[in-house]
Amino acid sequence: MRRVYLDNAATTPLLPEVREAMMPFLGEVFGNPSSLHSWGDPAREAVETARVQVAGLIGAQVEEIIFTGSGTESNNFAIKGLAMANQKKGNHIIISAVEHFSVLHSARTLEKLGFQVSEVPVDKYGTVDPDDVRRRIRKDTILVSVMHANGEIGTIEPIKEIAKITKEMNIPLHTDAVATAGTIPVNVKELGVDALSLAGNQFYGPKGVGALWVRRGVRIMPLLDGGIQEGGKRAGTENVPAIVGLGKAAELATANMDARIKLLTALRDRLITQLPAKIDHVVITGHPQKRLPGHASFCIEFIEGESMLMWLNMQGVAVSSGSACTSRALKASHVLIASGLSHELAQGSLLFTFGIDSTVEDVDYILEVLPPIVTRLRQMSPLYAKFEKAGKGVR
Amino acid sequence: MRRVYLDNAATTPLLPEVREAMMPFLGEVFGNPSSLHSWGDPAREAVETARVQVAGLIGAQVEEIIFTGSGTESNNFAIKGLAMANQKKGNHIIISAVEHFSVLHSARTLEKLGFQVSEVPVDKYGTVDPDDVRRRIRKDTILVSVMHANGEIGTIEPIKEIAKITKEMNIPLHTDAVATAGTIPVNVKELGVDALSLAGNQFYGPKGVGALWVRRGVRIMPLLDGGIQEGGKRAGTENVPAIVGLGKAAELATANMDARIKLLTALRDRLITQLPAKIDHVVITGHPQKRLPGHASFCIEFIEGESMLMWLNMQGVAVSSGSACTSRALKASHVLIASGLSHELAQGSLLFTFGIDSTVEDVDYILEVLPPIVTRLRQMSPLYAKFEKAGKGVR
Repeated sequence: MRRVYLDNAATTPLLPEVREAMMPFLGEVFGNPSSLHSWGDPAREAVETARVQVAGLIGAQVEEIIFTGSGTESNNFAIKGLAMANQKKGNHIIISAVEHFSVLHSARTLEKLGFQVSEVPVDKYGTVDPDDVRRRIRKDTILVSVMHANGEIGTIEPIKEIAKITKEMNIPLHTDAVATAGTIPVNVKELGVDALSLAGNQFYGPKGVGALWVRRGVRIMPLLDGGIQEGGKRAGTENVPAIVGLGKAAELATANMDARIKLLTALRDRLITQLPAKIDHVVITGHPQKRLPGHASFCIEFIEGESMLMWLNMQGVAVSSGSACTSRALKASHVLIASGLSHELAQGSLLFTFGIDSTVEDVDYILEVLPPIVTRLRQMSPLYAKFEKAGKGVR
Repeated sequence: MRRVYLDNAATTPLLPEVREAMMPFLGEVFGNPSSLHSWGDPAREAVETARVQVAGLIGAQVEEIIFTGSGTESNNFAIKGLAMANQKKGNHIIISAVEHFSVLHSARTLEKLGFQVSEVPVDKYGTVDPDDVRRRIRKDTILVSVMHANGEIGTIEPIKEIAKITKEMNIPLHTDAVATAGTIPVNVKELGVDALSLAGNQFYGPKGVGALWVRRGVRIMPLLDGGIQEGGKRAGTENVPAIVGLGKAAELATANMDARIKLLTALRDRLITQLPAKIDHVVITGHPQKRLPGHASFCIEFIEGESMLMWLNMQGVAVSSGSACTSRALKASHVLIASGLSHELAQGSLLFTFGIDSTVEDVDYILEVLPPIVTRLRQMSPLYAKFEKAGKGVR
């Protein structure tokens, strides 16, 4: 059976070049970078090379990169660490309604500690209006966090415009760039942000590693206390092989970004254009233009995303129905609800995320196998009467 | 030149069998364990197999194991998470004076948040007296944390005895078993603790992975908020290859523990017995009997540990002068100071930690190269006059 992996938002595979770069550090080069003897030296040098590579990917100063264990850790570190470090100035933070749970739930934790959190709404495309951020800023606002792009609906947020406002008001701005760094151009200076999260397994690097970039001069409190690794900002023995892999993946992403974007955009557009012509009642979620290149997301009415996912899986196709981090919670996506979709429609969420190994044939396979699945599932669905009433053949 | 790695407390090398077990998960088996499709299945199964292996190592229930990114994260999670979850009952916690910085500094952070921290002193061997713990327990004490063994001086703490007290008083007891789990028998039921930290790179598993065991029914607040991985207790995409490696390392440690302990103990005892016969004014640090099998630690008077370390490094030998996590801070060890050593003597700290690849020849090489180094460094030292006065030839 054909196997088609279209769930690169959940995790990308590891590139062979990345694995090769990691291998010595899973073998003879096993030293602890903090060690003062010659076993530590090559490990430390490898970590510093990776720091240069990651800094290069996002146009940052090398010493501003802090390695972490995941995108989730980077987001927790940013939200909690920036809030805690600025507690004397105030206790109000602003996030968007469509943030990843690692931001959203970090904010909830801060609420329990006495912080106040305002959520900025989004439009039907999941886009934040910078003026909505401005309107929520108060005298005691100490942090704004809006994601660079949303992994569930692909929408790219107007970070530059938001940064103009936060800069004017002198409030630190964090952006969760887990879905963008390594995929589309991300430059911290151009974006104008003060802190930015990224994760290795989103651009063909390893799992178990991420980074938080924090602009020099911006105070942050460590999330992991202990030794003086990462400039005293993130304790714990460095995960050398994973950091090396992240560096290599960053280098490859920098070098190949244009070609990758071209490929992914073509595949995405092919699916987004052709799928609605083959299935009734399909809604494209997220922004029609300002969206991630390899990201095609839909809601298919009168049906459940989970069941489509299972049936597609039986046909050898991997897709998802939302964020992998919440897939097992089986709840309607907060992102879709915030974008104004009904709970019923949000249940039919289906998310295709292409990768650099994806092909036109993969798209055509989806166009072939999905429509009969949808037809069958609708016939089996308790919503079938409703569907018939809404009208077959309606696009 | 001979290369002799005697810094296994800083990090152990990865066993070839562990690397082999990890390899598929750095290749074709790249799925996200949270994914609902068949790419996620083998990744999820591998994580669950590792959970069984780690539970087996410490005699725990499988579902009580929470994978983390390091021993440091496990300790931060335990100290902050247990304190935060029990805040309504009180705000007093007790730790020992010789804890790793990931425990000590986590407690400092809690102090900033309004918690009160009592430190239990240690005797000249670095041993905690359980009665000293008892005396510090108050009505509002919500957590006690004492390490299982100290990585700098090798001393094994009387956790069972402390657990009897905390159980009687109904206070959760955490132990940092990073230096012991995978090295000596650790059984959570026998120890009687409620939470226990361990780390992969301490027993021939990978860096970037650890675990926290929390007894069922003991409440803990997540350190990493976000998705519902690890039973909702630790968010973030699972670091599958590292978790698999940790599991394999746990399995091998369980199977080979007796043989490893026998080897390590023999090497340790050879060095501890013979080194003081070759160098004047050597103090063995830590407990003479109740100590880690591969752990030989000394303070060499009238000299600096760092300079011995450098000179040994030039002879191809890797040792350390204390915890790798603090090695670059170049401060006298809080562990040695707490054990009653003077700052001057603590400066001469030298720590040999044997591994399963170590040999008798390694010990004999140390016995050959170290004495002339010490002699030369003492001659160059500003403390030389003091040394002459103290008497050469004095053991």
